[in-house]
Amino acid sequence: MMRDDCVALDARDPLAAQRGKFALPEGVIYLDGNSLGALPRATSARVRNLIEHEWGEGLIRSWNAAHWIDLPRRVGAKIAQLIGAHPDEVLCADSTSINLFKVLTTALRMQASRPQVSLRQRNVIVSEKANFPTDLYVAQGLVDLLGQGHELKLVEFDEVAGTIDDRTAVVMLTHVNYKTGAMHDMRALTSRAHGAGALMVWDLSHSAGAVPVALNAAAADFAVGCGYKYLNGGPGAPAFVFVAGRHLAAIVDDTYAQPLAGWLGHHAPFDFDAHYRPADSIDRYAVGTPSVVALSALEVGVDTVLAAGIDALRAKSIALTQLFIELVEQHCAGQGLSLASPRNAEQRGSQVCFSHPHAYAVMQALIQRGVIGDFRAPDILRFGFAPLYVGHADVWDAAQALHQVLAKHEWQRAEFQTREAVT
Amino acid sequence: MMRDDCVALDARDPLAAQRGKFALPEGVIYLDGNSLGALPRATSARVRNLIEHEWGEGLIRSWNAAHWIDLPRRVGAKIAQLIGAHPDEVLCADSTSINLFKVLTTALRMQASRPQVSLRQRNVIVSEKANFPTDLYVAQGLVDLLGQGHELKLVEFDEVAGTIDDRTAVVMLTHVNYKTGAMHDMRALTSRAHGAGALMVWDLSHSAGAVPVALNAAAADFAVGCGYKYLNGGPGAPAFVFVAGRHLAAIVDDTYAQPLAGWLGHHAPFDFDAHYRPADSIDRYAVGTPSVVALSALEVGVDTVLAAGIDALRAKSIALTQLFIELVEQHCAGQGLSLASPRNAEQRGSQVCFSHPHAYAVMQALIQRGVIGDFRAPDILRFGFAPLYVGHADVWDAAQALHQVLAKHEWQRAEFQTREAVT
Repeated sequence: MMRDDCVALDARDPLAAQRGKFALPEGVIYLDGNSLGALPRATSARVRNLIEHEWGEGLIRSWNAAHWIDLPRRVGAKIAQLIGAHPDEVLCADSTSINLFKVLTTALRMQASRPQVSLRQRNVIVSEKANFPTDLYVAQGLVDLLGQGHELKLVEFDEVAGTIDDRTAVVMLTHVNYKTGAMHDMRALTSRAHGAGALMVWDLSHSAGAVPVALNAAAADFAVGCGYKYLNGGPGAPAFVFVAGRHLAAIVDDTYAQPLAGWLGHHAPFDFDAHYRPADSIDRYAVGTPSVVALSALEVGVDTVLAAGIDALRAKSIALTQLFIELVEQHCAGQGLSLASPRNAEQRGSQVCFSHPHAYAVMQALIQRGVIGDFRAPDILRFGFAPLYVGHADVWDAAQALHQVLAKHEWQRAEFQTREAVT
Repeated sequence: MMRDDCVALDARDPLAAQRGKFALPEGVIYLDGNSLGALPRATSARVRNLIEHEWGEGLIRSWNAAHWIDLPRRVGAKIAQLIGAHPDEVLCADSTSINLFKVLTTALRMQASRPQVSLRQRNVIVSEKANFPTDLYVAQGLVDLLGQGHELKLVEFDEVAGTIDDRTAVVMLTHVNYKTGAMHDMRALTSRAHGAGALMVWDLSHSAGAVPVALNAAAADFAVGCGYKYLNGGPGAPAFVFVAGRHLAAIVDDTYAQPLAGWLGHHAPFDFDAHYRPADSIDRYAVGTPSVVALSALEVGVDTVLAAGIDALRAKSIALTQLFIELVEQHCAGQGLSLASPRNAEQRGSQVCFSHPHAYAVMQALIQRGVIGDFRAPDILRFGFAPLYVGHADVWDAAQALHQVLAKHEWQRAEFQTREAVT
């Protein structure tokens, strides 16, 4: 495989036209879509129209006239198409962390109200040590708030299934690991959790828009995810929350099943009733007034993913990640890199990670060359491949840049500069 | 007082130049700043630059290079100037409702850890029946989540002080009432709460940017507030949270004093530590990644208020509201209106409310005439006077429009149209 072969692959790429929908700076190969997706060209005009016309001229009337009030559900319904959910099961709101707090609480309350076969209390949340920290923090905060024997139990990736038992109330996992890209088997683990009487919460932050997700086919209970990575919603874009329809029906009599009771979760917010009565739909997962500007930008990003189609994106994502692994292992052999992601594409999200003893400095040197990836402590180089705007030639160029950085010891200069800056 | 007198007052208004900073549509008198502030002209360019340059070209690098990471504290420090707080005591984050959940929990935990003089448990939240519903809902949800005798006690405006006793953990009040504009005496009530051993939470949603607030002079403990009303941050703009510095120091050893433990509240988010350890500053009130677009728009709005100066705004606000009451009572006498706001400007925010048996239809007819206020059930006409962009002649014209609507029975046509639309 030579660079020309990559250019040829790009020429016949059915997704090639999507790239033009994104504003990418000259001289940059952007492999950090899993930290912040690139800017869709349509976003700026959409936001400008929203600000100047809907806000500036429509003012308060735009909540109805410009359908601002519908945005959380409308964008949620679009995301539902990407994650195998029903349109009525997904809402855009708040941050991933806050949505996790909501659904973990719902799950614990559902368990507390169920007749249990065992005499032991079902009050343990099982998760993975290597889960994204905010997920663990949110669970730690909730467990501390609830007290009464609630507990967070953390185990290794491979130990999750074996850990679930009759004390497990909820299993909380991130589908695609933020650091390694390793992907859990959603269907098998959800089934394992259900078999033991536990409920299942999936964090889809590195999955939504990157890999096909089939929440309902897996009978998942709850999910959350982020809007600013592969959904291209912009920095700090609103997050989303999924609650299976059967649970929305089951919790209808538990007023505070969603504990962050805010006015937009009320069944009739504009009645200004002094007593909370939740909506009998996914709307009850709304809390305060959402940012209309941020939701509108997110909608444009989600539209770019829908236009490409998640299956086509996944096919290209596998081709790109596979190619990157092959090129790096071929051109950078003996330079201290080890693949830290699963080699089998079926077990991997849309990212590839290598460990290197000087990973921080290597990434700095790569960024100086215009190849933007991520460093993750202590020794991970993380490269995200957003197939909407990354091509095969980019993969070739990135692998060559990595080769140059390592072969020419460019990372040593980057490390020196960093030390100079610190001392 | 005739219209020409109002025009003359506007001509010598020291804040007249501020109006040009706002993009207001032709033919509209906008008296709904307390639902959604008007658009500062500078916002669109600021957001466009953020999207096209900082996001589009800077990409992930802008978190540092464009100082996105500093936005919640930078905008918080600006709001601090408007509410009598230290810059290190205010953070922009999430929604008012979610911030209220955070500080109510902190307050309840502080009380639970204090040695109490009485044997009775101090686990009651006292608030006002007429508080904005989301505040009540959030407290109801928290009380239900915590159980163990926690309780929300609701009383009338005048009964608050007398209700605070040795079971009161927290007094939670909205400084300026959303419906009537009635303003509590912050200093007296905070002092009363402290005298009884209770902590004080103020909701400043209708105060920040509208009336001078002196949180530290009143020794307030906690406060929250909204960015999209008098701060002109745009629809659903991020909210803010204030925690008195003495409490930030006191809770340093209570890991989950702020219970929504998210990664941006961690003392070192980018260490990706598996265990939560909160920042020892107001940063611990951050949860997930905030919307950078929304925060940037809010910053422009806050800057417009700072440029005018809150004391000048208050002086003009009192003049406008006083004038509106006088003109309406003079020109609409005998038309069924009753003043529902305090007549004494010292006890009133920047809004004036009248009740009318057909308030909904009256407001519809006013809106058709280009005078945009709010209807609040069951019978309230609410008019907010944002002195940044509302002038004396606007007040005259609005009062005249109200006179026309009532004298010509225009509201009857509006009511008929509404009924037609519903049936």
